[in-house]
Amino acid sequence: MKIDVIPYAPAIRPDLIKNRHVIVIDVLRASSVMVIALANGAKAFIPVRTVEEAHQKAIELQGEEVLLCGERDTQIIDGFHLGNSPQGYTRNKVQGKTLIFTTSNGTQALNRLQEAAKIFIGSFLNMNALVRKFQALDNVVLVCSGTNNNFSMDDAMCAALFIDEIMKKKAVALSDFSITLLKAFRKDNGDLHKLLKDCYHLNLLKRNGFEKDVEFCLQKNISDIVPEMKDGRIVRVN
Amino acid sequence: MKIDVIPYAPAIRPDLIKNRHVIVIDVLRASSVMVIALANGAKAFIPVRTVEEAHQKAIELQGEEVLLCGERDTQIIDGFHLGNSPQGYTRNKVQGKTLIFTTSNGTQALNRLQEAAKIFIGSFLNMNALVRKFQALDNVVLVCSGTNNNFSMDDAMCAALFIDEIMKKKAVALSDFSITLLKAFRKDNGDLHKLLKDCYHLNLLKRNGFEKDVEFCLQKNISDIVPEMKDGRIVRVN
Repeated sequence: MKIDVIPYAPAIRPDLIKNRHVIVIDVLRASSVMVIALANGAKAFIPVRTVEEAHQKAIELQGEEVLLCGERDTQIIDGFHLGNSPQGYTRNKVQGKTLIFTTSNGTQALNRLQEAAKIFIGSFLNMNALVRKFQALDNVVLVCSGTNNNFSMDDAMCAALFIDEIMKKKAVALSDFSITLLKAFRKDNGDLHKLLKDCYHLNLLKRNGFEKDVEFCLQKNISDIVPEMKDGRIVRVN
Repeated sequence: MKIDVIPYAPAIRPDLIKNRHVIVIDVLRASSVMVIALANGAKAFIPVRTVEEAHQKAIELQGEEVLLCGERDTQIIDGFHLGNSPQGYTRNKVQGKTLIFTTSNGTQALNRLQEAAKIFIGSFLNMNALVRKFQALDNVVLVCSGTNNNFSMDDAMCAALFIDEIMKKKAVALSDFSITLLKAFRKDNGDLHKLLKDCYHLNLLKRNGFEKDVEFCLQKNISDIVPEMKDGRIVRVN
């Protein structure tokens, strides 16, 4: 299996993703939120770029039970129902609901993947499920969402863990970037707290009071679901 | 000192390099060629994008002793004086000459750096000289040229060596990408042959008969010069 990694959302180019199986990663926190919310019974996520689009979409979807969800500068958006803390997406709040979702980084990447064959959502939380899924799939591109249009180590180390795990299951052909991430990951023996000690975005979240979110998102394999994007909606397919 | 790294030429954005000190790296082989040729007395390199531009520039520079230099698909260009093998740039051939230079990757990066405060050329060959230069300079961006618009490990590990060395001399603030490259570099204790064993571009050069070039370019600190780009020309300033 060929594996490539795109370092951050602005580096997505149609030729890199065309007809390939894409895994979008935004560990802190959009991917993690999607996994948990869908595991807790949310019907779907609809990623949108702007707050205005979110409100517009809510009007279009009259009849569905919708929640407005997302963040700007790490904080919940004024007038929205939920922010970007995975622990806020309890069954009580999200079951059966359609979540209109806009974040600074993760949803930007999702809107640039029209040429992909399939689009999945990856995080530490659902890593084993993702690896199992790709035992039967080929030709994968891991898209690290990044932070503020730049590379973010949390996403990259999640991509590296995927590579490390899938290599135990099948033969892979690694790009230069995949090799580099894997070497970095193995330098600290995959110890996420050590690897991400100086990660900019992780430390920003901690400073902004989201230390619990960070700890939550760095847990491995607490969910078995693999969210997939279909017709503009991210849904649970397993 | 703040250190950042741009992973490959298409990722250069004006906001990332504006008023910063840029080091352009194209280990295999453009940077290495520039270091060696200037050490051997070449007057200047003029980087151009296309073969046609190279011919045009040669006409404009009538009166100067010029050589047409560069490669496409790793090979010397038809009708050119020199290819992209550093060992071809002997004193005998290049002393006093202006070298009009076009390569697939390195010269593409050079033409996208107009906003930078200063532009230097980095390689393994002149690493110590580069580190010495930056003891007195601040705010550095390392630009990895990459290969065919993608990330290339040879350039990235050269950037990592710079970071590893400059950290011994002064306090630095590392971006997430800098940290990641440094961890990868240290995984194999900076052993370039081990690090670059599966590097795509390195192996392509070997397959195309340029094994000696590869070995040459992976030597550390055989030259004391730091090429600098001034008014569209790369010259020796020390």
